[in-house]
Amino acid sequence: MSLYVESLPDQQPSSPVHGDRNKCPVPGTLYNMNTVEEFQGLDRGGLLKREAKKIWDDICSGRAIEEGTLLLRFFVISFADLKKSTFSYWFAFPALFLNPPATLVDIRPASQFFNLDEAKSLSVSLNEWRNSKLTTDVPFFLVCISSDEHATIRPLRELDDCQHDAKRLLFGFYDSCNGKYPGWPLCNYLALICSRWKLEKVCFLCYRESNRGFPDLGRSLVGEALVSVPQEWRDAQHVPKSLGWELDGEKLSAKCVSLARSMDPLRSAEIAADLNLKLMKWNVFKDMDLETLTTVKCLLLGAGTLGCQVARLLMSWGVRKITLLDNGRVSMSNLLRQNLYSFDDCVAGDMKAVAAVKGLKRSLPSVKAEGVVLSIPMPGHPISTQDSSNVVEDCKQLQNLIESHDVIFLLTDTRESRWLPSLLSANANKIAINAALGFDSFLVMRHGSGPISSMPKDEEKVEDASASLPLGNSSASRRDGGSRLGCYFCNDIVAPIDSTSNRTLDQQCTVTRPALASIASGLAVELLVGVLHHPNGIYAPGDIAHSNVSNERSLGILPHQIRGCLSQFSQLTLVGHSSNSCTACSDAVVSEFRSRGMEFVLEVLNHPTYLEDLTGLTSLMKSASSFDIDFDIDSNEEGDI
Amino acid sequence: MSLYVESLPDQQPSSPVHGDRNKCPVPGTLYNMNTVEEFQGLDRGGLLKREAKKIWDDICSGRAIEEGTLLLRFFVISFADLKKSTFSYWFAFPALFLNPPATLVDIRPASQFFNLDEAKSLSVSLNEWRNSKLTTDVPFFLVCISSDEHATIRPLRELDDCQHDAKRLLFGFYDSCNGKYPGWPLCNYLALICSRWKLEKVCFLCYRESNRGFPDLGRSLVGEALVSVPQEWRDAQHVPKSLGWELDGEKLSAKCVSLARSMDPLRSAEIAADLNLKLMKWNVFKDMDLETLTTVKCLLLGAGTLGCQVARLLMSWGVRKITLLDNGRVSMSNLLRQNLYSFDDCVAGDMKAVAAVKGLKRSLPSVKAEGVVLSIPMPGHPISTQDSSNVVEDCKQLQNLIESHDVIFLLTDTRESRWLPSLLSANANKIAINAALGFDSFLVMRHGSGPISSMPKDEEKVEDASASLPLGNSSASRRDGGSRLGCYFCNDIVAPIDSTSNRTLDQQCTVTRPALASIASGLAVELLVGVLHHPNGIYAPGDIAHSNVSNERSLGILPHQIRGCLSQFSQLTLVGHSSNSCTACSDAVVSEFRSRGMEFVLEVLNHPTYLEDLTGLTSLMKSASSFDIDFDIDSNEEGDI
Repeated sequence: MSLYVESLPDQQPSSPVHGDRNKCPVPGTLYNMNTVEEFQGLDRGGLLKREAKKIWDDICSGRAIEEGTLLLRFFVISFADLKKSTFSYWFAFPALFLNPPATLVDIRPASQFFNLDEAKSLSVSLNEWRNSKLTTDVPFFLVCISSDEHATIRPLRELDDCQHDAKRLLFGFYDSCNGKYPGWPLCNYLALICSRWKLEKVCFLCYRESNRGFPDLGRSLVGEALVSVPQEWRDAQHVPKSLGWELDGEKLSAKCVSLARSMDPLRSAEIAADLNLKLMKWNVFKDMDLETLTTVKCLLLGAGTLGCQVARLLMSWGVRKITLLDNGRVSMSNLLRQNLYSFDDCVAGDMKAVAAVKGLKRSLPSVKAEGVVLSIPMPGHPISTQDSSNVVEDCKQLQNLIESHDVIFLLTDTRESRWLPSLLSANANKIAINAALGFDSFLVMRHGSGPISSMPKDEEKVEDASASLPLGNSSASRRDGGSRLGCYFCNDIVAPIDSTSNRTLDQQCTVTRPALASIASGLAVELLVGVLHHPNGIYAPGDIAHSNVSNERSLGILPHQIRGCLSQFSQLTLVGHSSNSCTACSDAVVSEFRSRGMEFVLEVLNHPTYLEDLTGLTSLMKSASSFDIDFDIDSNEEGDI
Repeated sequence: MSLYVESLPDQQPSSPVHGDRNKCPVPGTLYNMNTVEEFQGLDRGGLLKREAKKIWDDICSGRAIEEGTLLLRFFVISFADLKKSTFSYWFAFPALFLNPPATLVDIRPASQFFNLDEAKSLSVSLNEWRNSKLTTDVPFFLVCISSDEHATIRPLRELDDCQHDAKRLLFGFYDSCNGKYPGWPLCNYLALICSRWKLEKVCFLCYRESNRGFPDLGRSLVGEALVSVPQEWRDAQHVPKSLGWELDGEKLSAKCVSLARSMDPLRSAEIAADLNLKLMKWNVFKDMDLETLTTVKCLLLGAGTLGCQVARLLMSWGVRKITLLDNGRVSMSNLLRQNLYSFDDCVAGDMKAVAAVKGLKRSLPSVKAEGVVLSIPMPGHPISTQDSSNVVEDCKQLQNLIESHDVIFLLTDTRESRWLPSLLSANANKIAINAALGFDSFLVMRHGSGPISSMPKDEEKVEDASASLPLGNSSASRRDGGSRLGCYFCNDIVAPIDSTSNRTLDQQCTVTRPALASIASGLAVELLVGVLHHPNGIYAPGDIAHSNVSNERSLGILPHQIRGCLSQFSQLTLVGHSSNSCTACSDAVVSEFRSRGMEFVLEVLNHPTYLEDLTGLTSLMKSASSFDIDFDIDSNEEGDI
């Protein structure tokens, strides 16, 4: 008896399973338990009795004569500890008891029983029987030897004819055992024979095959058993006693195999990583889109405190394609907050982009992580003429990276370094997730879709939420007209400028309450997961916490911005729509970028106020100042916010 | 000229600094710039002019005659890049110009100038002058050679007498240079001589010492200079031109030393780790108690997803004494969420408590982290008689650990594993911080103080917040009467029971949204930092976000409980007072533990309902059920909450 992968089909096969020349399918049942306690606590006696009763019922009804495999019913109980890769299982092959037991009066190799002519004829007949599609998987049959020593194989139902025709009649069956004695199928066979036909002397053939799959009369056995119908069987309700639990060596106990050691640890790590997510989907989050999560390509701009934590959390959510961009080296001051780096990376002077990939692979060797060493060109950091071709190359590389990823995380530590990625993400209509920290406050937000509809004819189609890809980046159509969600720069009234030069040490270091980055990274990643699971993807409107909007999505609401404040242990969800004067995502800016390309970018890098002219902020400021409004730009704010 | 550590005293010395036999203190000024741009942009010409003017003013006022060191004024400009351990500096020794310049008519070794008797007498006198406390650090002096070849050293103010007495008169000065020509002090000396005394011919002695610190007439020089008072000096407002910036080799530029490579990387890591915190204190959080943070001893119960993140965040806050307790091994399914472990730890089959310490040291090798492999005994997990002595040992070890730490974090993944630590923390009046996760919600809270006042006479003292230690664990007095804050079990109406047996795989795994642990860990650590900085420490009342309570603490409010929900991206602060029926922190339970000790604990482990009897929960339930109240315990809640 062997169990193969195909023995455990995903679904009940619609048509009966047929065997072939070397296989005879047998019906079995797998009882897989969810917990080890359930496995250990199973009522094994009851299970065996239940299965034996099925066999008995099939004997009594005569079904077993037509479908002999029913006599071979078996079952397995099992428990799979997927976390430890250990598998406990116990087979039972129920064998009905005769009472009093059958008496074996003769048993010998078939080759000693038949004369040469009989043996030859029998081998041919058996071979034909096995070769015929009709009979190949019929495990119980009759062997008739005629008086001219000619052997034929006949179905059980023809017993009466055979008894009449044959000189000698044997009850044949496939014997999966290979020892000196017949295997367990004989028990149920005898039960059938003696219950159906009331025979008292049964001559049987344990049919066995050679290693090459042909009838082997040297291995096959012929025997004679004396049986009598037990008294109790006359009682219609009675079910014969049965045996059948497989021994583990000499012990009556379950077998246990641990595959943990023989498994490739790299593969085990992958399996374990996926297991948690599968359980989450199975148990709570039924709509979880594992396929999207494992295939989405995330680009993290900045591999600092936020970048490290976001990358780890993305991996926990099943994201496997992560590119980290940074231009710095691991320094001693990074180690405590930036959890992908080790002291050794720092002593070796590794680039963060390189060390971060090593760090991720320390947790999951198979993750598809890449590091890119690149400086993000920034408005207000002027470029000399001789550097400009290099900077243009950097801009183009950044553009290519953004266009070849699905999601862009903005995790740098200055406002101006977010400008070009914000513009490029808006231009390519990519999901952009932004996290920025102050001393004890943070902002986490997703940018709205890009401003320019490149496929306006698709607009109606995209309105049909179910038809749009959740990533939303296959179409840049503006689906929400004027109410596009804003980007990081939409509320600003000045263009980004150089905020890094001439900073003292305390201004250079990220002076934030240490837990802030954990919280903001966490929210940023959950926000992305929300977008990926929202039917409208990048076009999803911004939800507000505890608003009356009915919400049936398993993940809950999908806000636009989350602002948090540790000094109040509070958190707010906000919505901000896109601004026509935005220096990064407005139609004016994206159009100008599309028509002038990197020449436009260079002009902004050297003269950020040009953005204010372009977007109308300059004239807005002028008209505002004529009303003497106090804009109250608090210069004491810390960090990026 | 040498700069020593003592050359840069923390404070302006209250009394004048005196030199000794080998040192003559010279006044200098350090201009340390905050940014490299400030350093590079310094008006060096202006600085030199300002310092030269001070010298000139002291010459004109005659102060320089009494305090010769004023002629040696110098200054340094510097910029220290503490992150990179590079130090830029530039010395200037202002030397006033005569115009026309002085003419050196003779210069030769002093040994060739004096005859043997003069030289002998001069050496003795110079040695005495240097040995005398009164004159040891006077760098400018007169050398008088009498007609009997006897040499005496006299202060400058006695010039008139000396001119009268001496056969020969030389202007002596300590020359810190060692070349063929006199050093820069001669310039300012000549300016003094020619401006004060209008001499036109000046004979001078460049006094130099041997390597052993004695007068060395072979190295010392005698010379004669012709000087004339420049015309412009007659203008009272005029300040002579000056030179004085030190050369770096042959270049006129600042020197730069990088100590990064020569520093012990382990020490660098510590310095860098502290730097961020110092900057935070300097820049924003002035009340930050670095001393408490670095000395507080934290015990983390559970080194899983929460434990790993809490440990890292504690390190970021400057905590250096961390003990992690766990009884599990690192498994493949831990790697993605538990950020202290690596694939290699898992393949090696390390215990989590051991691997976590390795993980922390990868970030900061000098952290005082310890791992303890221990199972926390749990109510409802009955103990067999033969195991009971081992379990009692475990309980005692846990008690000892809790008593030898200041803060206990409860970060395990079941309710029942929090019971014994809650009781032991309440008994020892230790700060306990609790974090528990559901699928998309969390609870982070601090337990209130212990119920039993061990030092009731101190109550008044403790009322004075400033007198109480912030840790609050030196006194177990109940300072707030009945309004003690509650613990994790205070709201429960059933005793903790076995929730782990018979769990399926999805129930065994922590099925939570991955970012939840980041957020909860962050809040747990910030909550502790809040307690440590609150004047009332463990006794601090629970604040509510945005309540009207005026709050002037730099960290903001200090809540009792924070409950968050990712599906709403929302967060709530709550206060819950201690319950007299609490199964962990009530007076009844702690008293029973004090009187019966581990015998009591064993009874609870085996029969948790005993706690319900003890605390009156049983009778409460009975009376409640007689009113037919629906307690609505939602059995579908996930995880720990």
